[in-house]
Amino acid sequence: MPLMRSWVESANSAETEFPLNNLPYGVFSVGDGDLRCGVAIGDRILDATGLEATGLLRADADADVLDAPNWNDFMELGPTAWARYRADLQRILAEDADERLQDAAVSYSVPMARATLHMPFKVAEYTDFYAGRHHATNVGTMFRGPENALPPNWLHIPIGYNGRASSVYVSGTEIRRPWGQLKSPDHDAPAFLPSRRFDIELEMGAIVGQPSDGPVSVQQADDMIFGYVLLNDWSARDIQAWEYQPLGPFQAKATATSISPWIVTKAALEPFRVSTPAREKELLPHLREPGPMLYDIPLSVSIQPENAKESTLLAHTNYKEMYYSSAQQLAHHTTAGSPMTVGDLLGSGTISGPTRPERGSLLELSWGGKEPITLATGETRTFIEDGDTLTLSGAAEGDGYRVGFGDCTGKVIAALTDPYER
Amino acid sequence: MPLMRSWVESANSAETEFPLNNLPYGVFSVGDGDLRCGVAIGDRILDATGLEATGLLRADADADVLDAPNWNDFMELGPTAWARYRADLQRILAEDADERLQDAAVSYSVPMARATLHMPFKVAEYTDFYAGRHHATNVGTMFRGPENALPPNWLHIPIGYNGRASSVYVSGTEIRRPWGQLKSPDHDAPAFLPSRRFDIELEMGAIVGQPSDGPVSVQQADDMIFGYVLLNDWSARDIQAWEYQPLGPFQAKATATSISPWIVTKAALEPFRVSTPAREKELLPHLREPGPMLYDIPLSVSIQPENAKESTLLAHTNYKEMYYSSAQQLAHHTTAGSPMTVGDLLGSGTISGPTRPERGSLLELSWGGKEPITLATGETRTFIEDGDTLTLSGAAEGDGYRVGFGDCTGKVIAALTDPYER
Repeated sequence: MPLMRSWVESANSAETEFPLNNLPYGVFSVGDGDLRCGVAIGDRILDATGLEATGLLRADADADVLDAPNWNDFMELGPTAWARYRADLQRILAEDADERLQDAAVSYSVPMARATLHMPFKVAEYTDFYAGRHHATNVGTMFRGPENALPPNWLHIPIGYNGRASSVYVSGTEIRRPWGQLKSPDHDAPAFLPSRRFDIELEMGAIVGQPSDGPVSVQQADDMIFGYVLLNDWSARDIQAWEYQPLGPFQAKATATSISPWIVTKAALEPFRVSTPAREKELLPHLREPGPMLYDIPLSVSIQPENAKESTLLAHTNYKEMYYSSAQQLAHHTTAGSPMTVGDLLGSGTISGPTRPERGSLLELSWGGKEPITLATGETRTFIEDGDTLTLSGAAEGDGYRVGFGDCTGKVIAALTDPYER
Repeated sequence: MPLMRSWVESANSAETEFPLNNLPYGVFSVGDGDLRCGVAIGDRILDATGLEATGLLRADADADVLDAPNWNDFMELGPTAWARYRADLQRILAEDADERLQDAAVSYSVPMARATLHMPFKVAEYTDFYAGRHHATNVGTMFRGPENALPPNWLHIPIGYNGRASSVYVSGTEIRRPWGQLKSPDHDAPAFLPSRRFDIELEMGAIVGQPSDGPVSVQQADDMIFGYVLLNDWSARDIQAWEYQPLGPFQAKATATSISPWIVTKAALEPFRVSTPAREKELLPHLREPGPMLYDIPLSVSIQPENAKESTLLAHTNYKEMYYSSAQQLAHHTTAGSPMTVGDLLGSGTISGPTRPERGSLLELSWGGKEPITLATGETRTFIEDGDTLTLSGAAEGDGYRVGFGDCTGKVIAALTDPYER
C-alpha cells in the first residue's frame, strides 16, 4: 500500500510517523484545558471529542463515547464501529475531502507541539509476558547456563505473569528509582536500599478492546485486540533476583511501566503482518496461529544522560522477533476461564534479536553488568544512572511512509532519600 | 467487650454472625430490584442506599455515596467518615434507639433470607500472598524436601504475586473447572485438558480503602485497610506445576477467587487483634509490626459432594496463624512505589495451622494426592470432584457474641466439553 495523501501537508512527509495511513488514537490537553480524545495526523492533533460534539464525526449515533479522558468507551463499541470511524476519519482527512469538512477539521485541530499528551486509555489489568526467544535465551543462559536456558514449558506456552495496572504511565512521566529489599551474594541478610540495577525492557503492548467470557481461540483473540503501543517494562534486577522465587517478579516490576502516547490501531498495522518464526516444537492446537499475527515493526532504544548533548542508540530490534504473537498470548490468557476486560494491557515481553546490538534490555546488553556499554559521551553504563532518559522508538515502514507510535520516553530520577518521610 | 444489644432481636443471639458489634457491609437485591448497599444485622439487611436517600443516615452530607452497586465510593471517604457512619448505625440499631429511628430502619430493611447477595465492592486489582508459614512449609516440603522447605527470602518478605481482578466472584457463584496445559511426569509433551487437581486455598482478604502514592509504613498500611473478607483462592495444581517456573502462577490461579458476601470492617475486628507470631529472623525496620495487626478468627472449610446429605469438615484453622499481617503485606506492596487504589484486594495466602487437621488446602490435606481424605459419606477425595460444594466459614468469638463474614461457598461444576465451541 502506498502513502495515502492528506490535505494536512505534514502528513504526506516520508518522515512523519502519522500519515493518513496511521491515524493513531491518543488523549491530549492544551494549556489548562480538559483532557480530550485526539487523532494524530502529521504534526497536528484532530480533536475527536470536539468533532463528536459538532455531529460531524461520530463513532456512535446515540452516545458521546469520546466525551471522556480516554478511548475506553470507544473500544467498547467493537470492530464494526472501529472500522467505520476510521473510514470516516480517512474521508475527512484525505487530500480530496469536501472543503466544508476540511474547514471543520482545521478548526477542530491543534498543533501537536502545543499539546500535552496523557494516558490514551484506562488500563483495566496489566499482564506481562516473557515470549521473546532471544531474550529468554539470553537471560536463561546468564542464570542457568546455555544448556538450560529455556525452561521446559517455554516452547509450549507463552509464559506470562500479572503486573500492576496502577503504575502504567504515559511517555514523558519521570520514573523514580525504587527502593527494595536486596541481598548481595556476599551478605547473609538482605538490606532495604535503592535499586542499583534498574533497567528497561523494550516491548510492545497489545490493548484488549473487546471482552471475553471463557476461553477464546487465537483468531478470536486477534479480533479482540484494538491496537498496540510501545511499552517499557522498567525492571529492578536486584529486587527481582531476591524476590522472584517461587512466585515470580513482584516489586521488581511494580515501579512503573511506560507506554507510548499513541495507540496504533490494528487496522493501521494490517500491511505489516508477518508470521511468527518457525516452531521448534509444534504447539497444541489451541495456541496455533491461523494466519500472520505478528508485525514487522523496527524498534530501537536510546539513552541520554542528564545534560548530555546527544543520545546513544543502545539497541535496534524488530517486533517480528517475538516467538509468540499477542493474539497467542491473549488466547493463552483465557484458557482457564478468566474474563478479559476492555482496557486490559498485554506486554509482549522483551524483544531482542539474535545479535548483540539487538538486545532489548541493559541486563542483556551489559551481560548482567559484566560488560559495560560505552556511550557517545564517553561515559559507560551497565544499568541506568539517575538522570538518564531512556527512549523507545518504533515505526513500521511502508512504501514511502511510516506508521509510528510517538516515542516512549522516561527520565529516571533519584530514589527518595527516606521513602518513609513525608 | 460484651454483646451490644439491638432492638433487632435476632442480632442478640449468641449464634448470629451479625450482632450490633459487627455491622458488615454488603450489596443485595430483592427479586428483580436494583443492587443496593446493605448492612447485616441479625437475620435482616438494612437498606443503606434507601436510608441515605431519606436523609436519616448519610455517610456524606453532600454526595450520595451509597447510591451505587458497591461500597467503593464510601471507602473513598476515609477513616473519619467510616467511624462516624458506624457510630450512626450503632445508634440507630441499639436497643435504646429513638423509636422514630427504629420505625424508619424497620421500613428500610429486608429479611436476609429474601435477598440475593452480590459483590460488595468493585475489585480494583487483586494480589495474593504466600505468607502462612505452615502452608509454605508444607508445600515446600512436598516439592523441595524438609531442608529447603522455605525459600531463602521467605522469612524476610511476605512473598506475593499479582492475580486477576476480573475473576473475583461473590460467594455462591458456581466455579467451572478450568482447562489448562498440563504435563504428566510420564509424558514427554504437555496436553490441553481439564484440570485434574483442582483445589481450594483457605484465606482471608484485606480490602484497601484508601489510596497511596509511594511507600507506606506498616502503621499507615493498617490505617488504609477498610475491612476483611473470607477468600478462597481456587487453584489448579497441575496447571501450576507446569507453568509456574520461572515467573510464578498464572492460569493456575486465574479461574476464580471467591469472597464472602460481607466485608467485616476493621472497627468490628478491633477486639480480636493479636500480634503475628515470634520472628525467627528479625525483619528489616520497614516491615516491623508496630502493634498487633493480625486477628484471632477461627476459620474452617468443609466439603459437600453433590446430592450428599451432609458436609464434611475438612480443616479448621485460625487467621492468627499467619506469619505476616495484611498490613505488613500492604506495606511491602508499596515499597517499589506502585500506587495502591481503593478497592485493591490482598489475599493473605493459605492459612494452615501446625497440625494435620489445620491445613487450608487439599494439596496439604491429601499430601499432594497421596493420602486420600475420607468424607462423612464414605467417599474419598484427594482434590475436588465435579459437583462438590466447598464452604469457608469464619467468625471471631467475643464474650457472648460472634463476628462473622457469611459463608464463602462455591460449587465446582464440570469443565466445558469443548472450550472452543460456542
